[in-house]
Amino acid sequence: MKIFGKHYHPPGTAPGTLRTVLSDVPFAIQVIDYSDTAFFEKEMATVAECQPYLAKPESTTWIHVRGGVPMETLRELGGLLRLHPLALEDVSNHGQRAKLEEYENQLFVIVHLPVLSDDGRTRAEQVSLFVGKGFLVSFHDAESDPFGPVRARLRAHSGKIRSRNSDYLLYALLDNIVDHGFPLLERYGEQIEVLEEQLLEKPGQDTLAEIHQVRRDLVLIRRMLWPQREMLVQLYRDECPCIEQETRMFLRDCYDHTVQIMDLMESYREMASSMLEVYLSSVSNRLNESMRLLTIIATIFIPLTFIAGVYGMNFGNNTNSWWAMPELRWDFGYPAVWFAMLVIGGIMLYLFKRNRWL
Amino acid sequence: MKIFGKHYHPPGTAPGTLRTVLSDVPFAIQVIDYSDTAFFEKEMATVAECQPYLAKPESTTWIHVRGGVPMETLRELGGLLRLHPLALEDVSNHGQRAKLEEYENQLFVIVHLPVLSDDGRTRAEQVSLFVGKGFLVSFHDAESDPFGPVRARLRAHSGKIRSRNSDYLLYALLDNIVDHGFPLLERYGEQIEVLEEQLLEKPGQDTLAEIHQVRRDLVLIRRMLWPQREMLVQLYRDECPCIEQETRMFLRDCYDHTVQIMDLMESYREMASSMLEVYLSSVSNRLNESMRLLTIIATIFIPLTFIAGVYGMNFGNNTNSWWAMPELRWDFGYPAVWFAMLVIGGIMLYLFKRNRWL
Amino acid sequence: MKIFGKHYHPPGTAPGTLRTVLSDVPFAIQVIDYSDTAFFEKEMATVAECQPYLAKPESTTWIHVRGGVPMETLRELGGLLRLHPLALEDVSNHGQRAKLEEYENQLFVIVHLPVLSDDGRTRAEQVSLFVGKGFLVSFHDAESDPFGPVRARLRAHSGKIRSRNSDYLLYALLDNIVDHGFPLLERYGEQIEVLEEQLLEKPGQDTLAEIHQVRRDLVLIRRMLWPQREMLVQLYRDECPCIEQETRMFLRDCYDHTVQIMDLMESYREMASSMLEVYLSSVSNRLNESMRLLTIIATIFIPLTFIAGVYGMNFGNNTNSWWAMPELRWDFGYPAVWFAMLVIGGIMLYLFKRNRWL
Amino acid sequence: MKIFGKHYHPPGTAPGTLRTVLSDVPFAIQVIDYSDTAFFEKEMATVAECQPYLAKPESTTWIHVRGGVPMETLRELGGLLRLHPLALEDVSNHGQRAKLEEYENQLFVIVHLPVLSDDGRTRAEQVSLFVGKGFLVSFHDAESDPFGPVRARLRAHSGKIRSRNSDYLLYALLDNIVDHGFPLLERYGEQIEVLEEQLLEKPGQDTLAEIHQVRRDLVLIRRMLWPQREMLVQLYRDECPCIEQETRMFLRDCYDHTVQIMDLMESYREMASSMLEVYLSSVSNRLNESMRLLTIIATIFIPLTFIAGVYGMNFGNNTNSWWAMPELRWDFGYPAVWFAMLVIGGIMLYLFKRNRWL
Amino acid sequence: MKIFGKHYHPPGTAPGTLRTVLSDVPFAIQVIDYSDTAFFEKEMATVAECQPYLAKPESTTWIHVRGGVPMETLRELGGLLRLHPLALEDVSNHGQRAKLEEYENQLFVIVHLPVLSDDGRTRAEQVSLFVGKGFLVSFHDAESDPFGPVRARLRAHSGKIRSRNSDYLLYALLDNIVDHGFPLLERYGEQIEVLEEQLLEKPGQDTLAEIHQVRRDLVLIRRMLWPQREMLVQLYRDECPCIEQETRMFLRDCYDHTVQIMDLMESYREMASSMLEVYLSSVSNRLNESMRLLTIIATIFIPLTFIAGVYGMNFGNNTNSWWAMPELRWDFGYPAVWFAMLVIGGIMLYLFKRNRWL
Repeated sequence: MKIFGKHYHPPGTAPGTLRTVLSDVPFAIQVIDYSDTAFFEKEMATVAECQPYLAKPESTTWIHVRGGVPMETLRELGGLLRLHPLALEDVSNHGQRAKLEEYENQLFVIVHLPVLSDDGRTRAEQVSLFVGKGFLVSFHDAESDPFGPVRARLRAHSGKIRSRNSDYLLYALLDNIVDHGFPLLERYGEQIEVLEEQLLEKPGQDTLAEIHQVRRDLVLIRRMLWPQREMLVQLYRDECPCIEQETRMFLRDCYDHTVQIMDLMESYREMASSMLEVYLSSVSNRLNESMRLLTIIATIFIPLTFIAGVYGMNFGNNTNSWWAMPELRWDFGYPAVWFAMLVIGGIMLYLFKRNRWL
Repeated sequence: MKIFGKHYHPPGTAPGTLRTVLSDVPFAIQVIDYSDTAFFEKEMATVAECQPYLAKPESTTWIHVRGGVPMETLRELGGLLRLHPLALEDVSNHGQRAKLEEYENQLFVIVHLPVLSDDGRTRAEQVSLFVGKGFLVSFHDAESDPFGPVRARLRAHSGKIRSRNSDYLLYALLDNIVDHGFPLLERYGEQIEVLEEQLLEKPGQDTLAEIHQVRRDLVLIRRMLWPQREMLVQLYRDECPCIEQETRMFLRDCYDHTVQIMDLMESYREMASSMLEVYLSSVSNRLNESMRLLTIIATIFIPLTFIAGVYGMNFGNNTNSWWAMPELRWDFGYPAVWFAMLVIGGIMLYLFKRNRWL
Repeated sequence: MKIFGKHYHPPGTAPGTLRTVLSDVPFAIQVIDYSDTAFFEKEMATVAECQPYLAKPESTTWIHVRGGVPMETLRELGGLLRLHPLALEDVSNHGQRAKLEEYENQLFVIVHLPVLSDDGRTRAEQVSLFVGKGFLVSFHDAESDPFGPVRARLRAHSGKIRSRNSDYLLYALLDNIVDHGFPLLERYGEQIEVLEEQLLEKPGQDTLAEIHQVRRDLVLIRRMLWPQREMLVQLYRDECPCIEQETRMFLRDCYDHTVQIMDLMESYREMASSMLEVYLSSVSNRLNESMRLLTIIATIFIPLTFIAGVYGMNFGNNTNSWWAMPELRWDFGYPAVWFAMLVIGGIMLYLFKRNRWL
Repeated sequence: MKIFGKHYHPPGTAPGTLRTVLSDVPFAIQVIDYSDTAFFEKEMATVAECQPYLAKPESTTWIHVRGGVPMETLRELGGLLRLHPLALEDVSNHGQRAKLEEYENQLFVIVHLPVLSDDGRTRAEQVSLFVGKGFLVSFHDAESDPFGPVRARLRAHSGKIRSRNSDYLLYALLDNIVDHGFPLLERYGEQIEVLEEQLLEKPGQDTLAEIHQVRRDLVLIRRMLWPQREMLVQLYRDECPCIEQETRMFLRDCYDHTVQIMDLMESYREMASSMLEVYLSSVSNRLNESMRLLTIIATIFIPLTFIAGVYGMNFGNNTNSWWAMPELRWDFGYPAVWFAMLVIGGIMLYLFKRNRWL
Repeated sequence: MKIFGKHYHPPGTAPGTLRTVLSDVPFAIQVIDYSDTAFFEKEMATVAECQPYLAKPESTTWIHVRGGVPMETLRELGGLLRLHPLALEDVSNHGQRAKLEEYENQLFVIVHLPVLSDDGRTRAEQVSLFVGKGFLVSFHDAESDPFGPVRARLRAHSGKIRSRNSDYLLYALLDNIVDHGFPLLERYGEQIEVLEEQLLEKPGQDTLAEIHQVRRDLVLIRRMLWPQREMLVQLYRDECPCIEQETRMFLRDCYDHTVQIMDLMESYREMASSMLEVYLSSVSNRLNESMRLLTIIATIFIPLTFIAGVYGMNFGNNTNSWWAMPELRWDFGYPAVWFAMLVIGGIMLYLFKRNRWL
């Protein structure tokens, strides 16, 4: 049910209060320091070990903090890189919306990585990013490692990524995160196709439940994507000094992908709504059909049964009065009754036919 | 039913007309005067007693007026601090929307504290705040005391709150009020989960009523939050001289929380709407099911009962005509009728099966 | 049905064509001339009589024209005060939207006074106002006199109204008109509460009709309020020279009241819509209930009646063949049939119970 | 069905391709040349005859082209007055939206005249207008002559129309066209009132069809009015040199009328939607009522009929076993059965009463 | 189902990664080089062959690349004309939205050509266009050749197309693509008319399915047109140096066509929705009708059948007690029962008549 977790400090807590996040994922600091000519990669135990790499002026240092971050680490990182306490607080409170905040010479970005859970539902994992001159710090508290391909490109010196600054690294990470939406939506597209077939063949309460499921997922994904889209617009349009002019064109491409994903998603949502309408109207059609059958059967047989009931009365057995059911004593009474019943039934069938009920 | 009370002056009343609010909560003036080095806290009986503290240039004075304010007190406070009569009028008229008004060197803020009533419904309590250089006046007419944690932080000299001015105090109070929305929404989240389970297990008219209840509450909370959000945007964006640059960043954080709460609330609203749809379609499904059962039973048995009725007619008993129900006199008449009835019933069952009604 | 009357000139009429409005309300010109020190009030017979008061430079002259205005009067007033012909034309065409038009040194304002009709419906009466330096002309063609309280404040020299100019008088009249919305909405609020109780107790076609009535009224009131709101925004924001800076703050207060009324009204509209949904789903619930009862009764008794019908057939009476209903000749045939019927009925009840239909 | 005709060139046609419109209305060129002191009116055969009047500097020439315009005429007019080819192309393609296009010193306006067709539906006739210094060319391909009143005012020298320039003539024509909306909407208002009465008295499938008809017409009229409204805003706000300052105030009045018409139309649309809801809920109410009656009748009589069926079984006639329907041999068996049936029926009626079904 | 294909690189791919599109359409490079005086047309095998024509300063070179483009060709073209890698990447990823991107002295345009598939559904084919000084490159991967008419106009030197630059060629191609929407929408218009007739005559589940189909198609076409409209606004409004002032007027005309198409499409969508409502309410009407017939028949005959059942009981045959069905022994018992039944039936018919059920 939850795309966003609900984590919050109790009301009245002082602003900028940090806290240790308890997480199943083991805590790790992965440092990559690169320039056009050099590349260094190591897993560190403490924040202090990162300092020498951050101090180097010509290289870019990427510190990736994985798992639940201890309060201490946050504080040390904050002190080392002069990160704003309010931004640090948001790192450990996972229910944030995607956003971009500018501090002096730094950017703080929150973005959501859409992940397919084991139960087939979509989950959003918060990724927090600090970008400044010569460094990028990323936080991600989850099992999955979405940044493998970027790390591989850095190692392999493929493309222009090593010759650019931290703003291009930010773009590479955001692009990576945004593109995770494509396979996810493809899966929903396939599910919708399956549901459409089910609708035509044998729709049931299950189909309905699944359509609702898809709709709710898409509503939640949309809620995740909207602020992300705004954030990317801000990033490529605003004249923040951290982002170089050339990177901006790449960020626009990244924004285009987000809009494309949202477009697809809106189409899926409308299809799901449309399927719901088809389902409901097919239900009401079937109701109508059974009603009509029942009405036809009942309208024909109820009067006939009444007639049979009349001649099942016992008046003729108990008195000799001429008035006591004389029909029973007629020679052709029985065929006459059959004839009457057939005529009545025939007239009714004719009327139904004329009114297009048959 | 009411999130907002409906208090208004009769049409034609002169603007700025003050009035005494009758309240169950006893009237009290709680004064806190603090600076980085000093702290003073006392409950005053009259406005005049506050004057010496307000006069001190280096300290910030927080006057918290609790309960129904007498007209006199309002007038005295207005005179002492040069508050605008129209703003003072709004303090005692509780049906206001959240808003921010700028007067010369002063800000007037109305905000709503969401509170859970004893009957499980949400209530909005109006909090009015005047902020100027060196002072903050707050009005709150209710039992609950939402500002306890702030007072505690002031007393304990924890964080930076004592070293900042009245604009930071304003932030602290607003943050406190906004964060009250989180536990409230959590409660609605839990209620929605319970309702979802009920929907799957045994939905009834009660479930429906409760879904409607939740939806209406969320509509009203939304109506409360929208102007609050606008007010906060205005507060952190506008260049009003009362708010220092550094505090603005904190107000943006406070705004972020409001947006987060609204996001959650919108998700809950859509879930509630979705549950309503599920409920209605399950109702129509059940209607359909009973219809189908009825149709099957009736379609099979009505013709058979008619046949039985035919052979219950008394023609054979009252005349010796050969035409009088000869079937009754056949040796195998009875098994033949049973056979006919079984064939007819079987054909119908087969037709139902073929049309997927069974 | 009509909140707005439909008055229009035939297509092709020259612009600025005036006309006499036929009205049940007698025509009257009420003149008040006031300054901080002087006050004069008189009912005039002709426009010419007003001229001396208008000519006085230090006082403000308020000319209130009541009832259907003769074409002549309009023309004379227009000539005397240099009112624009298009604005004068709008005075007598009552189907206008609220609007603000600026002419040189003059403002033309159309606003609607919401009035409760005798039949419990809401009616909007058009009030037209011309404001210029030293004068205000108001037109109101209706029985009711909404401006009594303002006149009383002028006479009594209460508040600041006498020491201000015509722009403050404009505010006082607008405030008066806007505040008429509060008691009106309170009445709708009460009606909604009564309807909610009816919904829970014994909803019927009447309840539905009344909910629709309320909804339609609220739609029409909303249509009246929207342009009024825009007009007030324009009035307090625009830098038109007729409005003094200080009055602007009061107009903002007046605008706040309008927004508050619209807020309340939107809440009522959503409640009315919600009630409609509750009504419709309770109707479909009751349909479902009757369906289920019918299905249960019919499903149990139709097969049993069939069995009884079978043993009411007359085969056994008319032939001695062993095959002719041997069951009738068994000693325990009758109890066996009862037993069979009880078993069948019991199984069905059990099945219904298991499927939660009972 | 069509408010707008669908005329288009095949894809790939060169821009500015003119074509002759085939029309039932005979082609005619009506020329009026007027100044404050002179007036001349004549029907011309060719465009060339108009040239002398256009050449006169002090007078305004109004060329009204009626019926289907030959391609040649369009080309000649275009050459004479330097009209843009793209604008000329739009004159003969009738499916245009209302629009305003500025070319050097010229305005091109497309507007729609709402006309009531003989079948009671609304039709939009395209009117194209070119306005430049000293001339106005209008095109109208239809039977009706909407501009008669303007011509009459020109002839009669009534009002200020003769002393103004071509921009005021443009206003006069637009005002004329816009005001045609009022009687049209009045007719829909009356139709809605009639439908409301029908709804209360004897609603049927016809009422539904008519409500849908009205709704669709209003949707189409709205689609016609929206671009017209935009066009008028552009016309009175933009600083295009063709329009004099004083005329602008008149155009604003014309814009006000359009907004008023749209307002009325929106009210009618909402009323039509509301009527649809009332209709649908009254249908479902009636369904519910018949269901309830059926359920009551069936629930009471089905068990009783079963009992009667039981005692119509023939066990007692064919064996002397004590077990064979001993009730039939009891002295008071028959009254006992009646008593049992009355008790059962009474209990059911009581239960229905208690559950408010009766 | 798909108007847009879903093609995307796996997440983590480096930006600007090109790829060969596998297509059924054979790859071809069609080059046209033209100026006011010269015209040259040839199908090239490699990109290198185009170079001499591109180098000529006075002529415009149009390179049309048809079918699936090999990665190599893309790279060579990109090198030759300095196309941006991100734009080149979009050429081979077909799921793009229509967009306009400005690079230095170049424009990159993506637009969709609506095409009617063989199965009667609409498909959007992506057309990518690069425009720079003296050249235009177009990509289109499909069987159909939409640009034939433009090529014909170039060959025939008809109109002004040969004397203009590449920006006018861009307009000609866009106009061509946009105008393809008219015949498409005309087809939907005809389909809607056919469906309306079906609705009135004999609506069935098929009609419903087709209405849904049309609605979904229109939703998807709308999704295709919206970004196209935005792109055209940007193109004719923005001051990008590639577009000459005079061409802008033509682009505005092209924009007008798009708006016109969208208008038509919105009308069709509303009509389709309205038809759905008519269908659903006619279904519920028919349900109501069968319900009423059933209720009437059952209400009349069930009590009568009960009476007949009562006098079919066998009490009178098995005992001589006076209490055992004395009615059977009355002389006029049988006519009395008939009389009673007729009276009961008559009363019911009268009641139905009075309540307007008949």
